[in-house]
Amino acid sequence: MPKSFPTLAAIHTVVFDFDGVFTDNKVWVDQDGRESVRCDRGDGLAFDLIRTFQRRGRLTAEFFILSKEANPVVLARAKKLKLGCHHGVGDKLGFIVEYLAARLPGDADPFAGMVYLGNDLNDLPLMRRAGYAVAPADAHPLVCDIAHLIMPQRGGEGFVRAFIERLLGIDHLTKEEIDELVSDR
Amino acid sequence: MPKSFPTLAAIHTVVFDFDGVFTDNKVWVDQDGRESVRCDRGDGLAFDLIRTFQRRGRLTAEFFILSKEANPVVLARAKKLKLGCHHGVGDKLGFIVEYLAARLPGDADPFAGMVYLGNDLNDLPLMRRAGYAVAPADAHPLVCDIAHLIMPQRGGEGFVRAFIERLLGIDHLTKEEIDELVSDR
Amino acid sequence: MPKSFPTLAAIHTVVFDFDGVFTDNKVWVDQDGRESVRCDRGDGLAFDLIRTFQRRGRLTAEFFILSKEANPVVLARAKKLKLGCHHGVGDKLGFIVEYLAARLPGDADPFAGMVYLGNDLNDLPLMRRAGYAVAPADAHPLVCDIAHLIMPQRGGEGFVRAFIERLLGIDHLTKEEIDELVSDR
Amino acid sequence: MPKSFPTLAAIHTVVFDFDGVFTDNKVWVDQDGRESVRCDRGDGLAFDLIRTFQRRGRLTAEFFILSKEANPVVLARAKKLKLGCHHGVGDKLGFIVEYLAARLPGDADPFAGMVYLGNDLNDLPLMRRAGYAVAPADAHPLVCDIAHLIMPQRGGEGFVRAFIERLLGIDHLTKEEIDELVSDR
Repeated sequence: MPKSFPTLAAIHTVVFDFDGVFTDNKVWVDQDGRESVRCDRGDGLAFDLIRTFQRRGRLTAEFFILSKEANPVVLARAKKLKLGCHHGVGDKLGFIVEYLAARLPGDADPFAGMVYLGNDLNDLPLMRRAGYAVAPADAHPLVCDIAHLIMPQRGGEGFVRAFIERLLGIDHLTKEEIDELVSDR
Repeated sequence: MPKSFPTLAAIHTVVFDFDGVFTDNKVWVDQDGRESVRCDRGDGLAFDLIRTFQRRGRLTAEFFILSKEANPVVLARAKKLKLGCHHGVGDKLGFIVEYLAARLPGDADPFAGMVYLGNDLNDLPLMRRAGYAVAPADAHPLVCDIAHLIMPQRGGEGFVRAFIERLLGIDHLTKEEIDELVSDR
Repeated sequence: MPKSFPTLAAIHTVVFDFDGVFTDNKVWVDQDGRESVRCDRGDGLAFDLIRTFQRRGRLTAEFFILSKEANPVVLARAKKLKLGCHHGVGDKLGFIVEYLAARLPGDADPFAGMVYLGNDLNDLPLMRRAGYAVAPADAHPLVCDIAHLIMPQRGGEGFVRAFIERLLGIDHLTKEEIDELVSDR
Repeated sequence: MPKSFPTLAAIHTVVFDFDGVFTDNKVWVDQDGRESVRCDRGDGLAFDLIRTFQRRGRLTAEFFILSKEANPVVLARAKKLKLGCHHGVGDKLGFIVEYLAARLPGDADPFAGMVYLGNDLNDLPLMRRAGYAVAPADAHPLVCDIAHLIMPQRGGEGFVRAFIERLLGIDHLTKEEIDELVSDR
């Protein structure tokens, strides 16, 4: 279900699923059951750019991770990216309904300004409601069926980075603007 | 040796080999010999769906892992999936003969209702006996020769998930049924 | 430089390089410099088969790992495979010259009965001398230039397993022989 | 922007970014936030060759790693490669300007003799100034746009090794020279 890519001004919330979005949807398990996941270093620069845009007042949306996974590996990656995180959430739709009601009281359609990035069946209820639903190339077929945009990148393979570059319009910046942005820490 | 895919009602036991089935048949080894394996996060949702089907009485079969591997990494993953597990079993056929005799005493052909998923030579004796034998796309050629079904997925790359989705008939559910299933935890 | 594949009877020693042979030639490094490598579970069954052949007197050759790498991760994997191992060896050719002189004193050409499997430039001096030199598909071009056989498998991707299956003639065994071999532990 | 490959004599400094250059730009994160990266064993031999060249007076350039990443995993790999390393450096261009001014005082164009290997947007300011800028095949499109050379290898997949082999002219050595080089430790 294609739909035009949202403008920065039209978005108040961007919510990311974790596994299969920031990762390749795989988990490394050791003998003691300790878990590790594989993430993309390029995502770090993406959120640095977002914070630069926020400091300059060019971006007001909130960004956070919402995951069903209970293992704290999700929190560990979120902390490195300096990104908010809610994990161990079984009913994602219920969580967001409450979150938006509290943050945007009185908004008749708080979902309209929300972007959701997800890849699997438990993301479906929320993706059906989100104003803009984005899936990686290797998402579940039923997720691809309802996403407004399927990116060419697979989860954990530049998917988050490419979405954020498109959201920030990196392609339309001059080289001076880019050099300045990446040096602004 | 193609054979029609079994119905839920015709199955009483589903047995999974571990390495090459839940994983890519690789093992990460550290300096102290500690082992880790790479699993697919999508398998977790598959077994959540199975438990939902079981709670609703739509499924009575038992599911467990049977592995020759002695390392407890197999147990660690089974525990996360809330799945029964027998590991360090050298003679898989002998183990299952005893298991089925104890669970289904008097059954003239207890193997008929058993599905087995395996990928390597030591799975052959059991796959020859199983009512339905399933292999991932990258199984050993001699395993592919006798499997009733070779799935298009490689081990650890959605193979278990795709088999379970087919077994549960996910493709034939309505969107309301799917949304309800994935929210039922 | 193709050369006919050696018979079991013609071989007294099989020497394996480690990285790039048992692994994909990659190393995972953590914050403390601890190393892990990725190995193929299928190799375990290969050395089980070799030991079965040895117990039955069908095979007398010795098999071991010879690696320049100093990190004990090599030893950890060798131990799991129950395989001899010499690591931290900078001058592989010198090591083997001494080893063969001690084990086969008086043999005019002890290298003739030796198979060597290697993938990189430091394997070249030994591969030029070995009676039979085998490389994985992704070996260094200069190694491929002098190998007697380049296997279609990449290092760590079934390369060792495929070489051993060919050496043992697995393709020519009956199904009864295979079922018996894999159950003989 | 193609430019002829520099000669050994024309270079005084070779600077490597780390993530995406020595690695596939991925990071494994565990439950406690501990990081691991995947490196290429072949890079070790490359720096062994460089040290042999240096000992023989055939090479005088300095080689080191310069990374924005704060995690000590960068230091751990540099230590194994016996390579200098500056990490946690946000302003790479500023760092190198000071470094070259101190090391080559009075040099009118100290950047001319510097090679830089990088893959992402924060490498751009330095790559624009470097006498020779090299990118892996999977570098960011804006990096590829300005690199003097895009190697066919991806980051962490033989990229550093192939660059060093080309710099040392491995292809033009005789087999005696290569065998001697790889045995010289």
